[in-house]
Amino acid sequence: VRYSPLLLVAVGVVAFFWLLAALIGRWEALFARTGLNPLLRGLALQLARAALVLVGLLIALDLLGATAIVTAVLGTAGLAGLAVGFAFRDIVENYLAGVLLSLRQPFAIGDLLQLGEVEGRVVRLTSREMVLMTLDGNHARIPNSTVFSSVMINYTRNPRRRFTFEVGVGTDEDLRAAQRLGAAALRALPGVLADPEPQLRIRDLGDSSVILVCSGWVDQREADFFKVRSEAIKLIKETFDEAGVSMPEPKSTVVLERAPSS
Amino acid sequence: VRYSPLLLVAVGVVAFFWLLAALIGRWEALFARTGLNPLLRGLALQLARAALVLVGLLIALDLLGATAIVTAVLGTAGLAGLAVGFAFRDIVENYLAGVLLSLRQPFAIGDLLQLGEVEGRVVRLTSREMVLMTLDGNHARIPNSTVFSSVMINYTRNPRRRFTFEVGVGTDEDLRAAQRLGAAALRALPGVLADPEPQLRIRDLGDSSVILVCSGWVDQREADFFKVRSEAIKLIKETFDEAGVSMPEPKSTVVLERAPSS
Amino acid sequence: VRYSPLLLVAVGVVAFFWLLAALIGRWEALFARTGLNPLLRGLALQLARAALVLVGLLIALDLLGATAIVTAVLGTAGLAGLAVGFAFRDIVENYLAGVLLSLRQPFAIGDLLQLGEVEGRVVRLTSREMVLMTLDGNHARIPNSTVFSSVMINYTRNPRRRFTFEVGVGTDEDLRAAQRLGAAALRALPGVLADPEPQLRIRDLGDSSVILVCSGWVDQREADFFKVRSEAIKLIKETFDEAGVSMPEPKSTVVLERAPSS
Amino acid sequence: VRYSPLLLVAVGVVAFFWLLAALIGRWEALFARTGLNPLLRGLALQLARAALVLVGLLIALDLLGATAIVTAVLGTAGLAGLAVGFAFRDIVENYLAGVLLSLRQPFAIGDLLQLGEVEGRVVRLTSREMVLMTLDGNHARIPNSTVFSSVMINYTRNPRRRFTFEVGVGTDEDLRAAQRLGAAALRALPGVLADPEPQLRIRDLGDSSVILVCSGWVDQREADFFKVRSEAIKLIKETFDEAGVSMPEPKSTVVLERAPSS
Amino acid sequence: VRYSPLLLVAVGVVAFFWLLAALIGRWEALFARTGLNPLLRGLALQLARAALVLVGLLIALDLLGATAIVTAVLGTAGLAGLAVGFAFRDIVENYLAGVLLSLRQPFAIGDLLQLGEVEGRVVRLTSREMVLMTLDGNHARIPNSTVFSSVMINYTRNPRRRFTFEVGVGTDEDLRAAQRLGAAALRALPGVLADPEPQLRIRDLGDSSVILVCSGWVDQREADFFKVRSEAIKLIKETFDEAGVSMPEPKSTVVLERAPSS
Amino acid sequence: VRYSPLLLVAVGVVAFFWLLAALIGRWEALFARTGLNPLLRGLALQLARAALVLVGLLIALDLLGATAIVTAVLGTAGLAGLAVGFAFRDIVENYLAGVLLSLRQPFAIGDLLQLGEVEGRVVRLTSREMVLMTLDGNHARIPNSTVFSSVMINYTRNPRRRFTFEVGVGTDEDLRAAQRLGAAALRALPGVLADPEPQLRIRDLGDSSVILVCSGWVDQREADFFKVRSEAIKLIKETFDEAGVSMPEPKSTVVLERAPSS
Amino acid sequence: VRYSPLLLVAVGVVAFFWLLAALIGRWEALFARTGLNPLLRGLALQLARAALVLVGLLIALDLLGATAIVTAVLGTAGLAGLAVGFAFRDIVENYLAGVLLSLRQPFAIGDLLQLGEVEGRVVRLTSREMVLMTLDGNHARIPNSTVFSSVMINYTRNPRRRFTFEVGVGTDEDLRAAQRLGAAALRALPGVLADPEPQLRIRDLGDSSVILVCSGWVDQREADFFKVRSEAIKLIKETFDEAGVSMPEPKSTVVLERAPSS
Repeated sequence: VRYSPLLLVAVGVVAFFWLLAALIGRWEALFARTGLNPLLRGLALQLARAALVLVGLLIALDLLGATAIVTAVLGTAGLAGLAVGFAFRDIVENYLAGVLLSLRQPFAIGDLLQLGEVEGRVVRLTSREMVLMTLDGNHARIPNSTVFSSVMINYTRNPRRRFTFEVGVGTDEDLRAAQRLGAAALRALPGVLADPEPQLRIRDLGDSSVILVCSGWVDQREADFFKVRSEAIKLIKETFDEAGVSMPEPKSTVVLERAPSS
Repeated sequence: VRYSPLLLVAVGVVAFFWLLAALIGRWEALFARTGLNPLLRGLALQLARAALVLVGLLIALDLLGATAIVTAVLGTAGLAGLAVGFAFRDIVENYLAGVLLSLRQPFAIGDLLQLGEVEGRVVRLTSREMVLMTLDGNHARIPNSTVFSSVMINYTRNPRRRFTFEVGVGTDEDLRAAQRLGAAALRALPGVLADPEPQLRIRDLGDSSVILVCSGWVDQREADFFKVRSEAIKLIKETFDEAGVSMPEPKSTVVLERAPSS
Repeated sequence: VRYSPLLLVAVGVVAFFWLLAALIGRWEALFARTGLNPLLRGLALQLARAALVLVGLLIALDLLGATAIVTAVLGTAGLAGLAVGFAFRDIVENYLAGVLLSLRQPFAIGDLLQLGEVEGRVVRLTSREMVLMTLDGNHARIPNSTVFSSVMINYTRNPRRRFTFEVGVGTDEDLRAAQRLGAAALRALPGVLADPEPQLRIRDLGDSSVILVCSGWVDQREADFFKVRSEAIKLIKETFDEAGVSMPEPKSTVVLERAPSS
Repeated sequence: VRYSPLLLVAVGVVAFFWLLAALIGRWEALFARTGLNPLLRGLALQLARAALVLVGLLIALDLLGATAIVTAVLGTAGLAGLAVGFAFRDIVENYLAGVLLSLRQPFAIGDLLQLGEVEGRVVRLTSREMVLMTLDGNHARIPNSTVFSSVMINYTRNPRRRFTFEVGVGTDEDLRAAQRLGAAALRALPGVLADPEPQLRIRDLGDSSVILVCSGWVDQREADFFKVRSEAIKLIKETFDEAGVSMPEPKSTVVLERAPSS
Repeated sequence: VRYSPLLLVAVGVVAFFWLLAALIGRWEALFARTGLNPLLRGLALQLARAALVLVGLLIALDLLGATAIVTAVLGTAGLAGLAVGFAFRDIVENYLAGVLLSLRQPFAIGDLLQLGEVEGRVVRLTSREMVLMTLDGNHARIPNSTVFSSVMINYTRNPRRRFTFEVGVGTDEDLRAAQRLGAAALRALPGVLADPEPQLRIRDLGDSSVILVCSGWVDQREADFFKVRSEAIKLIKETFDEAGVSMPEPKSTVVLERAPSS
Repeated sequence: VRYSPLLLVAVGVVAFFWLLAALIGRWEALFARTGLNPLLRGLALQLARAALVLVGLLIALDLLGATAIVTAVLGTAGLAGLAVGFAFRDIVENYLAGVLLSLRQPFAIGDLLQLGEVEGRVVRLTSREMVLMTLDGNHARIPNSTVFSSVMINYTRNPRRRFTFEVGVGTDEDLRAAQRLGAAALRALPGVLADPEPQLRIRDLGDSSVILVCSGWVDQREADFFKVRSEAIKLIKETFDEAGVSMPEPKSTVVLERAPSS
Repeated sequence: VRYSPLLLVAVGVVAFFWLLAALIGRWEALFARTGLNPLLRGLALQLARAALVLVGLLIALDLLGATAIVTAVLGTAGLAGLAVGFAFRDIVENYLAGVLLSLRQPFAIGDLLQLGEVEGRVVRLTSREMVLMTLDGNHARIPNSTVFSSVMINYTRNPRRRFTFEVGVGTDEDLRAAQRLGAAALRALPGVLADPEPQLRIRDLGDSSVILVCSGWVDQREADFFKVRSEAIKLIKETFDEAGVSMPEPKSTVVLERAPSS
């Protein structure tokens, strides 16, 4: 009986904070000013509401003199949260990584990505994993936290992509002429951009040939990258064949000795 | 004796919370609105009940003035939970990963998966591990937490799968004709889909041959993937043999020198 | 002297909880309903008893007004447990892993397992390690926690196991005939199962041969796997020799050039 | 009612600290003396303000006798912060790393960097990741924390860069003359710096040739590094061809034996 | 002065617990029943004594009203222990691992072990490391914790050990006869056990030979393993030479082409 | 009003400790005796001052009866410090590692270091990273914590450095004479030290040559290491050529067989 | 004023404990009995003294009623210690490892060690790192904690060390005679020990030779290990040459085929 007035006050306090929590959602001005995007703003709102109700409950309990319980419950809750946090770490990390990835959008659905050893087109992003369709038509699922902490190479983002391949020409050939000839041929190939222009650079003096690196740029929106590369290899081969530029097989010198007994 | 009335109150409090815990399970509306699936809802219900009973006990103990004990027990429990949590981490992680995997179902029983270096068909998923049957008929057991944090490639999910193999044709051949010939042959092979159509792309200028990559798509529900691939290799070989397209062995040039002494 | 009655009460409380702990073991109904296996049930019982005695002691100490000590001791115990837990982590992990492995029995004594790079037959499982006998007759000891978190391949669990080996046949051979011939020969070999039937698949167009993969299934309860494989290789070789299917050595083309000076 | 004067005091305390927090930003002298850069100074200011307001609130609450709540809330907040800190670790690390990287500027936009296995030009640095454009025109995204803890090689920072390539000359050649000849040729090549001067060093006695390492320095602001290297290889080859310095293919001695049966 | 009687009581309490600690060592029955081995029993005894003395001290301090200090000291001690525990982790781990290894004795002094990449005979086990003498006569020191968590292969434990080596026989040979011949020869070699009997299995169809794996068992107590293996290789070679079983060198087919210009 | 005298005392206490903190810097004797170097001594002084001021503040707050706040603030501060400590770990580690590295000076500016896979000359050491200039003229930045925990090879510290290279001489040569000849030649080469003297050791019996390892010592202050090595290789080659010591190319025996059909 | 007598008592308590701390160093008997070595005993003494002074301070503060501060300071100190401990972990680990390494002396200055991939002679051991001089004369610095947790191979500790090298002899040779011949030659070589005696074991049947492993033991105090090995290789080669034991180059069979067109 003695507790009655206090009990009333306590109930009032809880009711007041509950109301406050309900009202806070309307206070748009406050949130709008923080510059957060809507998704995160919603999250912050939820947290603020939960905190307000919690504070209300704590004050009420304190008024009723249940201080020790309050302390104990809170302490345990904190520690339990710690323990649970460790156990759920992987799941939480994946979820957080998923939220952040969806906020930033460093890729679009359909982009061709390279993530570690997996290469494929983005199918979708769930709260736990990213689903890629490999070029062979298989589903690859990569945990979001792995995606988040990996180096991601996006082959689609930049419309222009360079292809390269090597050709070994004979050591007797006129290199300057071969370079000019090859670059001219590539420049004429449909799908290869004029700027940056195709190039043939010397990379190495091989054992029996000089290694040239041919490169050219493709606008992926207008031409199929792999097809243009295939055509370019064919073209360079045909051009060099026609012009009589040799592309020799490996060569070695052998000193013959008869076996002593023969 | 002095404690009697308080004791009664304490017992009452415990009884009240116990009742509340028993009733909460009926409050379907609350849980249904959270949008969780039944399995997780059951879990949440269990936790809520345990928490209610615990709170009841704590209030009763507090009424009896056993504050210090309450605090101490709770504190120790929290820390002990922390210690236990670390020790059981592997087990808990596997269990949680198992629950999540069974909820999401990123694979079906019988799917052909690649997980790290192990490839096999899913036999079953237990609370600790996933059992795969490798293609050689051996059981492979993979801890759930490893499954959860690995890149998983699912060869079965997408009914269409692409096969690829390489053929090296002679440097003197008409590449365009060889490409057309091979693609036509593959298109006629039963089991190879017309769309996406089979392709022969040039991948490299090898030392003594031009490397073509042949690829085609198989609908795995209608044809055996590995069998179609085997047939396709045979077909390409026969087609090229018939058409006189050479597939040469490695070639090298040797400069002969007599040993000085001979 | 003043403490006497309180002391009596305290002793009574301890005695009561001790009795409770002793009685709890009889309360079979409670434990049976949890659905745990006997080993874990025993463990739970031990823990419950220890907890009850501890609670009794704490209440008694509290009655005697030794609150501060209780708190301090418990707090320290918790932290010490944390420290000890870290130090003993490896040992505890191995022990827990051993308990779980013995509960689940993912292998039987004598099974042939592959764990990481070690392959051998299970000799025994102790509380710390698994002892394998490698095929060369050496003891390999693997910590339980390593076993627990590794991919385990069990060659014995499934009675049927597939063997595979490669044969390279000449590029001029009739592949279809060779496949039929080899499969028929394997089907007739004692120890090779008729279902799933033996197969010869084409895997690759090698430089100077076509690579066939021969595979067949063995029931390990009836035939020695390695012996059947050895016989199968011999059989395929003899069959192909008889039928005149060539299995050529590597072939290469050499272009001879005389050294300029000679 | 009894609380009224205290309540007034409490409100006053909060107001006083709020004012203090607002004023602190003006106290430029204090911050300027710390020698921090503006960005970090702003951060410190924010923290100091938040701390002041918090202290004000705590004192007010304490005046109102809400000590226990204060303690409990603070304790829980601390632990919760710990738990949250672990969960958000990756994100926070990336953010901190991003801040530090942008403060120190160990690279400029457009610099050519090597980070682990990725090589590319810096496009931009966000709060989470560094975006590189690989030389093939693809976007590579590297988490800031990976950037922060990796070895970073900056090819652009130092305007002078050295190219190296190997040439194998015949074992019969005059090495000293070849070295002099090559160095002179490189010195005359446009784009190759005179100081440090180009060099040809002997690196190894190969099986059938002596391996020379040719090196030269390029000023990247004036010449394209890769182009100069390509020209240098061509030049050395032409110079040695003209001077009759042989660059032989691999050589081996073969002892011929007739097969016994023939 | 006022504290005198309390001080006496306190001293008495400490003395009582000290006595108890001294007496506990005699209470053999308690320890014997735990089933621990003597070494661990001694350790447990030390811990129990230290705990008793500590409890005595705490009670005495509490009687003197030094509660706060007690709490503070204990709390700090716990945290300090935590910090120290982390710092000393490596050392403690090695020590614990050493104790456990010496208890279990998974090897004897002189056993030939393989631990990771180190192979050698056990010289001694200290509290920090295991000393192996490699077969080349060098000392290798391996930290106990590394030993504890590694896969350990013991070549000595099982007296019987199998040797294996490969022989390639010509593709024209009668494999069945070669197998019978080799097995008979091995059976007759002193040091090779009759049961399990020596075997020659076919492992692969090599490019120009059939690969046989010869294996036999040696009782290491009666014969030197490496010597028997050396003899066995010699024997198989001599037997096959005598019986005319060819062991051919690698074979390849070369298609000769004259250089176009010659 | 009632608090006034207490407030004065509190202010006095704070002032006193502040003064103490200011004076402590003068107490050189105390610090000098610790044997620390000036940099660390400054750090210790800063910490001691901060601690004194803090203690003063705490005592003042306690006098004012704000005990609970003090406790709460301190506890939170401790936990917050923990959380912050984890987040800033990388940065703090780098900073500490930088301080320690600059104290110990295990290298000088300009030293040629090998750290993991990076080799270069030290440019400078900042509080976060070490900047090396690779031999190719590129900047490499290595985090201090990586430097601190890596194996660091310093090629400059010891003025004398050994070069080694291999030569294969014909199996028919007089090895003793070749060794003597080569060592004498190296001894005469300018830049090669007489003590320790140059050596030619036999390392292996290669397939068609005997592998000699030539080594000699260079004083790096007087001669360019790489240049001397280059000269030494040239010298050995010329010496052996002159003396007629053969350095043969790889040799193999080939058994010729006509193809059966020809 | 009221605090005066208490203050005096407090000062007295501190003085008493300080004295105690000073006296404890003399109590040699206590420390001598622990069986620790002098270095660790000194460390323990320092810790005991610091603890005594600290306890004195705490009791004094408690007498003055500054309980709350004491608790708060201690708690914060503990947590701070935790945070600091993590930050300084690397440094502390290195220091501890250095102390332990210097206590145990598993190597002497000048010993030739192999630690991971670094091989060199011990120059000195500091509190942070071990300095090795590689055989090429370069300084290698390895953090003590790396040394502590690595496998350490000591080539110097055991005076006797075995060298091994391989020789391939022709398949037509009398192996038993070659073994006897080689062993006799090695036995006669100065520096090779008679016991354990030198051996030639057969290791493998190579493609065109039988691989023998020659081994012998050297007393490193009397002979230079590498020189003896060099001599031994020379000796075996000369012995086999003299006795006409062939050591053939790789051999292969080539089936010649004319190109179809020629």
